[in-house]
Amino acid sequence: MAMNAIGVDVGGTKIAAGVVTPEGKLLNEVRYPSDGSTKVLLDSIARAVREVRDGYEVGAVCLAVPGLILAQEGKVVFSPNLSTIQGVSLKDELEGRFDLPVTVENDANAAAWGEFRFGAGSEVDHLVFVTLGTGVGGGVITHGVLMRGAQGAGGELGHVTIQATGPRCGCGNHGCLESLASGTAITRRAREVAAKKPDSALGKLASERKLIGEDVTNLAHEGDEAALAVLEETGLWLGIGLAGFVNIFNPEVIAIGGGAAKAGDLILDRARKEMHLRARSPSRDLVEIKEATLGAKSGVIGAAALARDPESGEYVLGA
Amino acid sequence: MAMNAIGVDVGGTKIAAGVVTPEGKLLNEVRYPSDGSTKVLLDSIARAVREVRDGYEVGAVCLAVPGLILAQEGKVVFSPNLSTIQGVSLKDELEGRFDLPVTVENDANAAAWGEFRFGAGSEVDHLVFVTLGTGVGGGVITHGVLMRGAQGAGGELGHVTIQATGPRCGCGNHGCLESLASGTAITRRAREVAAKKPDSALGKLASERKLIGEDVTNLAHEGDEAALAVLEETGLWLGIGLAGFVNIFNPEVIAIGGGAAKAGDLILDRARKEMHLRARSPSRDLVEIKEATLGAKSGVIGAAALARDPESGEYVLGA
Repeated sequence: MAMNAIGVDVGGTKIAAGVVTPEGKLLNEVRYPSDGSTKVLLDSIARAVREVRDGYEVGAVCLAVPGLILAQEGKVVFSPNLSTIQGVSLKDELEGRFDLPVTVENDANAAAWGEFRFGAGSEVDHLVFVTLGTGVGGGVITHGVLMRGAQGAGGELGHVTIQATGPRCGCGNHGCLESLASGTAITRRAREVAAKKPDSALGKLASERKLIGEDVTNLAHEGDEAALAVLEETGLWLGIGLAGFVNIFNPEVIAIGGGAAKAGDLILDRARKEMHLRARSPSRDLVEIKEATLGAKSGVIGAAALARDPESGEYVLGA
Repeated sequence: MAMNAIGVDVGGTKIAAGVVTPEGKLLNEVRYPSDGSTKVLLDSIARAVREVRDGYEVGAVCLAVPGLILAQEGKVVFSPNLSTIQGVSLKDELEGRFDLPVTVENDANAAAWGEFRFGAGSEVDHLVFVTLGTGVGGGVITHGVLMRGAQGAGGELGHVTIQATGPRCGCGNHGCLESLASGTAITRRAREVAAKKPDSALGKLASERKLIGEDVTNLAHEGDEAALAVLEETGLWLGIGLAGFVNIFNPEVIAIGGGAAKAGDLILDRARKEMHLRARSPSRDLVEIKEATLGAKSGVIGAAALARDPESGEYVLGA
């Protein structure tokens, strides 16, 4: 029976929870900070779920959590930005409090699933989802199946080497897509370009205060050539990574989300061009590279869509 | 009902066909050249199937063909090394001749499926298969599903950029895994090293005749340091590519096949080391990089295992 489900996006700074209908409509949403001890965090999640549940009939809850998740056990193995819940089985800790089945998923995989079911990939069976934020995250749906991999650690699209001799990445590797196309890479590149072009709008702003990623997007939208060059170079590296994904997955859609995606075609046009130069036919001709459509709600909606009925093992929202 | 199936590996120079049992045992095999006109090639395939079928009860036939295959139509869209069957629906042309259902698959995907069912990946649900031949091919099984992609063009693991500023690849891109770790790359590298080290065994052989890939493996097995250095550098680049696959797929096994895999640990030891330096935990700790076990028979065995019962749509050999 189609029922509502609750999706909870447990991020490094906030918890967002909402009730989602079988059609993917987010009926309500509450937000709490995600700081504090393990107990405080668990209490905040429980309070958020109770608040949004009030007045709605709900079949299950799913939590989207950054890091390595053992989905079958509902356990968080490794979560650098949420160290208080490392080693915690969120399923065991929370299921009793709700009298509802609880499952746990990786946040990027949940967001990818949200875009697949109700967003940029809702019309297709093969979707690659890439988030350009502080890091580069990803999730892949192939033949309609969420590609979690053997341990649930699959879909780490940001940590694929595209320039073996490139800059060091936060993961320890060199030349990962993340090290060349993340929001962090944009900011680093912006500071370099600003130093070289002090008379550009970017250069002038940099002499006043420390640049952030949004500055680059804003100045590029205003036509500053230095800022545009930063986004263009980012798009070039993104396109190199996407070309690999096109050849590997032969997807119908690549959806780009995350904060840096706000630059839209200022990054994506160059990425599309580079992808087309580097990927093979017919995959490169089929694929559409477009902006994700659910924005910051992809985590909550995707998590809800991954909530499972423990009896049947099927997704509560259907598939 | 479990039945035998016939797998046919249609290569650039030869056709190999064999009857395979539900347990993956190859009962017999015939080979014909794959040259000649479209009609000659179709006749050769038909003759091969008839010969191996003689005396066996068989449920279905599957052809493994290099290039882009539309599996649903049984059609070869693009096949650079078998141009005579480009645009031909092998299913339509052959089904009537056998009174057996005929399906068509990409050869690397078929070989990957063979290793998954009966070879190096028979104990796991998540397998990446990479062939190091003239080019670099691949196939991926994730969650037990053969990853064909939207058009059947997925799994092109050789054409993923690992060094964006690297050498030009046959596909037109720069710095593909294929351009750095294929048999062709080994030969190119061997000629360069031979020119720099004329007193090495490799250098001496190069002064007598044109080097081929096998020379490098043979001399490396004999301990020639120049030849060992060539394989070590190849292993390094292979490892960079595999690290990406480990992060993307979180597989249990990566199986390496193809001619260059005969160098075995002379390539793979360096590849394992580089993979471990560049990939993330826990994926890098789980994965086992090993030689494929079916050798040249992976195509025939894999194709047979992909033969489908048209009534149920299930694989004849079961899964």
